[in-house]
Amino acid sequence: MKYGYFDDKNMEYVITTPTTPLPWINYLGSDEFFSLISNTCGGYSFYKDAKLLRLTRYRYNNVPTDTGGKYYYIKDGDTVWNPGWQPTKTPLDSYECRHGLGYSRFHSSKNEIEASLLCFVPQKDSCEINKLTLTNKSNQAKELTLFSFVEWCLWNADDDMKNFQRNLSTGEVEIEGSVIYHKTEYRERRNHYAIFSVNSPIDGFDTSRDDFLGPYRGFDSPVAVESGKCTGSIASGWSPIASHEINITLAPGESREFIFLLGYIENPKEEKFTEPGIINKARAYDLIQRYQTSEQVDKALADLQEYWQKLLSRYQVHSANDKVNRMVNIWNQYQCMVTFNMSRSASYYESGIGRGMGFRDSCQDLLGFVHLIPERARERIIDIASTQFEDGSAYHQYQPLTKRGNSDIGSGFNDDPLWLIACTSAYVRETGDTSILTETVPFENDWDKAAPLMEHLKRSLNFTITHKGPHGLPLIGRADWNDCLNLNCFSEHPGESFQTYGPSEGPVAESVFIAGMFVKYGEEYAQLAELMGDHDEAARARSEVATMYNAVLNYGWDGEWFLRAYDAYGNKVGSKECEEGQIYIEPQGFCVLAGIGVKEGLAQKALKSVKEKLDTKYGIMILQPAYTRYHLELGEITSYPPGYKENAGIFCHNNPWVSIAETVVGNGNRAFEIYSKTCPAYVEEFSEIHRTEPYVYSQMIAGADAPRHGEAKNSWLTGTAAWTFVNISQYILGLRPTHSGLMIDPCVPEGFGDFCLERYYRGTNYHIQVKNPSNVQKGVKEVIVDGEVIEGNIIPIVDRKDVFVEVIMG
Amino acid sequence: MKYGYFDDKNMEYVITTPTTPLPWINYLGSDEFFSLISNTCGGYSFYKDAKLLRLTRYRYNNVPTDTGGKYYYIKDGDTVWNPGWQPTKTPLDSYECRHGLGYSRFHSSKNEIEASLLCFVPQKDSCEINKLTLTNKSNQAKELTLFSFVEWCLWNADDDMKNFQRNLSTGEVEIEGSVIYHKTEYRERRNHYAIFSVNSPIDGFDTSRDDFLGPYRGFDSPVAVESGKCTGSIASGWSPIASHEINITLAPGESREFIFLLGYIENPKEEKFTEPGIINKARAYDLIQRYQTSEQVDKALADLQEYWQKLLSRYQVHSANDKVNRMVNIWNQYQCMVTFNMSRSASYYESGIGRGMGFRDSCQDLLGFVHLIPERARERIIDIASTQFEDGSAYHQYQPLTKRGNSDIGSGFNDDPLWLIACTSAYVRETGDTSILTETVPFENDWDKAAPLMEHLKRSLNFTITHKGPHGLPLIGRADWNDCLNLNCFSEHPGESFQTYGPSEGPVAESVFIAGMFVKYGEEYAQLAELMGDHDEAARARSEVATMYNAVLNYGWDGEWFLRAYDAYGNKVGSKECEEGQIYIEPQGFCVLAGIGVKEGLAQKALKSVKEKLDTKYGIMILQPAYTRYHLELGEITSYPPGYKENAGIFCHNNPWVSIAETVVGNGNRAFEIYSKTCPAYVEEFSEIHRTEPYVYSQMIAGADAPRHGEAKNSWLTGTAAWTFVNISQYILGLRPTHSGLMIDPCVPEGFGDFCLERYYRGTNYHIQVKNPSNVQKGVKEVIVDGEVIEGNIIPIVDRKDVFVEVIMG
Repeated sequence: MKYGYFDDKNMEYVITTPTTPLPWINYLGSDEFFSLISNTCGGYSFYKDAKLLRLTRYRYNNVPTDTGGKYYYIKDGDTVWNPGWQPTKTPLDSYECRHGLGYSRFHSSKNEIEASLLCFVPQKDSCEINKLTLTNKSNQAKELTLFSFVEWCLWNADDDMKNFQRNLSTGEVEIEGSVIYHKTEYRERRNHYAIFSVNSPIDGFDTSRDDFLGPYRGFDSPVAVESGKCTGSIASGWSPIASHEINITLAPGESREFIFLLGYIENPKEEKFTEPGIINKARAYDLIQRYQTSEQVDKALADLQEYWQKLLSRYQVHSANDKVNRMVNIWNQYQCMVTFNMSRSASYYESGIGRGMGFRDSCQDLLGFVHLIPERARERIIDIASTQFEDGSAYHQYQPLTKRGNSDIGSGFNDDPLWLIACTSAYVRETGDTSILTETVPFENDWDKAAPLMEHLKRSLNFTITHKGPHGLPLIGRADWNDCLNLNCFSEHPGESFQTYGPSEGPVAESVFIAGMFVKYGEEYAQLAELMGDHDEAARARSEVATMYNAVLNYGWDGEWFLRAYDAYGNKVGSKECEEGQIYIEPQGFCVLAGIGVKEGLAQKALKSVKEKLDTKYGIMILQPAYTRYHLELGEITSYPPGYKENAGIFCHNNPWVSIAETVVGNGNRAFEIYSKTCPAYVEEFSEIHRTEPYVYSQMIAGADAPRHGEAKNSWLTGTAAWTFVNISQYILGLRPTHSGLMIDPCVPEGFGDFCLERYYRGTNYHIQVKNPSNVQKGVKEVIVDGEVIEGNIIPIVDRKDVFVEVIMG
Repeated sequence: MKYGYFDDKNMEYVITTPTTPLPWINYLGSDEFFSLISNTCGGYSFYKDAKLLRLTRYRYNNVPTDTGGKYYYIKDGDTVWNPGWQPTKTPLDSYECRHGLGYSRFHSSKNEIEASLLCFVPQKDSCEINKLTLTNKSNQAKELTLFSFVEWCLWNADDDMKNFQRNLSTGEVEIEGSVIYHKTEYRERRNHYAIFSVNSPIDGFDTSRDDFLGPYRGFDSPVAVESGKCTGSIASGWSPIASHEINITLAPGESREFIFLLGYIENPKEEKFTEPGIINKARAYDLIQRYQTSEQVDKALADLQEYWQKLLSRYQVHSANDKVNRMVNIWNQYQCMVTFNMSRSASYYESGIGRGMGFRDSCQDLLGFVHLIPERARERIIDIASTQFEDGSAYHQYQPLTKRGNSDIGSGFNDDPLWLIACTSAYVRETGDTSILTETVPFENDWDKAAPLMEHLKRSLNFTITHKGPHGLPLIGRADWNDCLNLNCFSEHPGESFQTYGPSEGPVAESVFIAGMFVKYGEEYAQLAELMGDHDEAARARSEVATMYNAVLNYGWDGEWFLRAYDAYGNKVGSKECEEGQIYIEPQGFCVLAGIGVKEGLAQKALKSVKEKLDTKYGIMILQPAYTRYHLELGEITSYPPGYKENAGIFCHNNPWVSIAETVVGNGNRAFEIYSKTCPAYVEEFSEIHRTEPYVYSQMIAGADAPRHGEAKNSWLTGTAAWTFVNISQYILGLRPTHSGLMIDPCVPEGFGDFCLERYYRGTNYHIQVKNPSNVQKGVKEVIVDGEVIEGNIIPIVDRKDVFVEVIMG
């Protein structure tokens, strides 16, 4: 069952009912000012940091679902309705929500009044624009009253929902003309305030929530709206809001347009006030003036659309498969950018106050956006590397504002160091910019301890080399990629963090997954060393890789699949010998994509086992059989009910690893089958089961053991976006950046047909036509570059604006 | 305007409308299981710790106000209503909420159905009982469907509102008969679960919130209730709830009674399961069996009522003033007990997840309950003293469960040490138990560093003696009683805690308030030293007191009132020389109640200044003029808008200090005027302005500078309760425990008339008749004990069960 459709031409997802299974959201903003907006106008805005500078209040997991947002109430006689349906939930005569790239539009109507609402954050200003157009489609004049509504958050979103003994006394506002200024704490240490304005005279306002809503009333029935009149309240403590009242007469056929602006303003400390207690509004006036007219707003939207179009043009596919086209060209790349912007901080599942940026998360996310914004990727690599310790280990998380490591969590996640190689390699392969490798980067943000980035990568590599267990496999530490497999934790009491409780190191527990990573990223490190001319170092790395490869074959193979780990007692994890959790997905995916066991025929066996043991119609589960009881020696993974999250859920992040692994062994059919099972454009068809947005990936889908098998959770901010884009763009469609150029090596399902790729790479636009006359799954017979057949399948780097390539599979 | 009335006979406050200005709550529970319940059935329950073991979910500052609680929906044809009005808000034909001591009752009716709901936590079990009685008052048979509802919190209330990427996947329940078991995380590290049961067969149930409510619906319109039928949902992640459906036929005049039980069960680790995954329910069966019948429930309620009656009988007054009687005999003592039970952790303003127990808070709270539960007061003194440092300073907060100091906050609040003397002195004067003084108590909870409690008190005293500033006045450190006067902080950025930012010590900033405390509690220390036979130490203390007394006179007097402090630059705070904040309440109250300046005539002058400069019709403001801008050198106090909180709000906590001070100078009229201005029983008359509960004190009332002058905030958990009880019971009514017996020294307003006091003290019931034939405000002419006139006004301690005393004022 679908609740909407893709409008590929406009690059929008069109939602045709407000009652989606869950709120389906979009992100507005691409730089410093961000908003989350759902298909019923729920959501909130913040400046830079979702915890510390939250502009509007939002209550997660509230009842009714997703109440709180930027609302417009239209009072038409006794009928009150909202363009986004919520919060009044008055049945609409028509409804449509279009989530586009950085904007959302609502079109709805009731009793012959049409409302059109456009919401976006312009590129260069710290504000959200809401353009509301009301049209009288009847043949009688209509008297309407329009009420706007936002509820201010008192800036720190965490404190805002806890510290009532203070917060209920601090709220302050100013009103001037049609502009409501929220200035709580501005009188003391804040140099910023927020505004909510409209480009029209107003007939009333409210700034006190309790006065606007009336006692014991909800957002669905504000007393001010019911009575048709704001009260003119001036908030003094309690909950400040902003509501404008505008009385409107519309002649038959007449339209009127209102531009509302929610803005964030910072003043220099010495320019805070114009007179005692009165905020300096000059910057607000400037901002408002830039969005007074329809033309100004339309121009800003056009600029935004152009930005996105240009950005996404860096990788485009045109195939016979619409679903692949729309995911690659629009939604998957868009999600990668949102993940970059949000750093896993704020979604409808991440409350925006929980965590810093993950070391491994950021490294992996980068794989998905490095081709879009290589300059910012470079910056982020330096930031990440700056939190590394001198011994090569790393802070597991760091703070986005200070960019410093989070000592509450510390280090001990032994896969972290290798991810730094992964993202640096990806960056250099994308850009050819080897200067990053010689850039001086501090350890622990301490410039007294600094070294070239290449030295950081060496320490990453050496960390694994010097931290091996009894079988010569990497020690796992607190956890590897699977944060919930805690082999040195042994937590017995609720409230103890599985990630930080117990010792950060153990001398026995080993990870086969990290071994797979080492084989893959050890080779990528060797290539970087070669690029730098250090062939001895490259050879050393490859020798270590070979040693690890053998350790995996000798101690990491269980007979039909790769083991997952050895626990702190030296017992196998993910083995047929286990009572539960006999097979895990991660080592099958990562060992094979690293090439382990391919020539020995083990890779194929492992992938067969994945299909037999872990596959479901909704994707590949993380492990089987699910853990039915808590295993002290395994940690959080066994804390979840069977089928959910790491305990045998379908973790979308690692499904592409298996898909990539299938391309490594040349199985295009199976690679694509795996791709399509979790692919939003495919999943759209059964949205009533999947429930989350059908245009983006979710972190997890309930596995076969769960009562809600097939139901997704934690949409938007997940490494899935990056890894799926790597999979579809580089392995299935097969256009892979290397140090010497773009390799073309598709691995497609039978019947996929010919396709074109447009790729902006190192200053050149590559126009690539892939022909598959023999309908093979893999294999490139011929590559013709600007009319010339080349040797091999790596399109050389050239100094031309456009390159035309023809690729013949076979 | 009133929204109810006091029913003194039943010791209840009766609320006659559900739409009180704010939710008016009560506390259920007196030992380990607690519930907050509002007059519309909002609220939540927890076991021991409101953060870590929250049973049911509650959303603070929600819209609509106060939604979320234990709800009963009565479906009578197309009409659905709740006995507590919320959440359907269906207009009721009658409504009444009675908040009693540890229980609340609701009586309401709709369409000739009467509902009576009794809610309480029995004394010996970890559960809340809800007895619901439905009566058909019509002369036709009625078919009703009853739905119960609670929403489970996933135990950790902080994590519950943040960590959705985990929490939405963990919820688990079991259902057996009429019992719904909430067992989220029981499969792993929790050994506890919760139950919601009813003593009747059920016709259906729901345990998944989304199934019960239906998509996008609120608590006001669950789809299950609307359709008349639960769905039988089994929660699997998301939000587990418990709802019973019971179909009822009531003949004309027939009543039916249902006993609902919300319980908390802990199992020994080795007895968690009866079979894999199935929780051991034996303890739940036992608990449920104890509350199966009306007789059992009535007995438990009677026991509870007896407990409270006995407890409160330790201090009773019978005067011509009903308001004084009801506050002293019922509500003020009740609030003191609630403050003891909650330790400032959970009210409708303290979200239950914010803070540990305050050192100074706990010491002061003890002044209000030491006569009620001396054994537990003793225990608490030992706990508090155990967090003291060896140098006499103290952790400013400590954790109630671990009883260890909170190192996040640390020490540096230089009044803290002296409060330990205050509460120990109060305990010894109440009980005569000097053994506490020789009890060995650790420093910093470290038994290697332990000393007798008397040594702790000595270090408290010495801390002040050894931490004086340029004027010989005590250094203030981070802050004294007024946490918001931060003279060494100099915070310039939002998010910095005023209490912990900057140095904890400063060599210049001094507090006149601490000087007042030193004079008062230095003398009380000297008395304890004498009790222990250490007359040299007593003399030393008194000599130090004298030195301090002189320092206050020399450097703490501003001409018409006492200074508040010297800031870090040595500038005066609370002086006529200041631009803002010229006079503060605290030093006027505390210096005078310590006796400073009485014989010099300064005390009277200071109190006159208070009346002239700080008094309002709603109480005495903390300072004047209010700070209109942020003063970096003063800290948080200047961060509040004028008139709120510490910035010129009426801080109820220190109003009694001034009232006591007035009794010290013999001004009964003024003492009582001050008492009555913030006294709930007086305030009740203008509840529409005051807004918080009219049966308990609030922390703060908005001062004259605030737009909402007279509006109270932060009701229930405030030191106001203790200090007001000390004021009315010991100073105005004048019955004061001393080391040699009960001193009787009333200071009453003219016309107060004769009154009786009943006091249980050191094993004896004192029946005291106070006669005031000359209508004096102060002065005791004669005290007759069991027929014998005694010397002085201290009733000697005797070894008899009853003592009859006649007191003649004059």
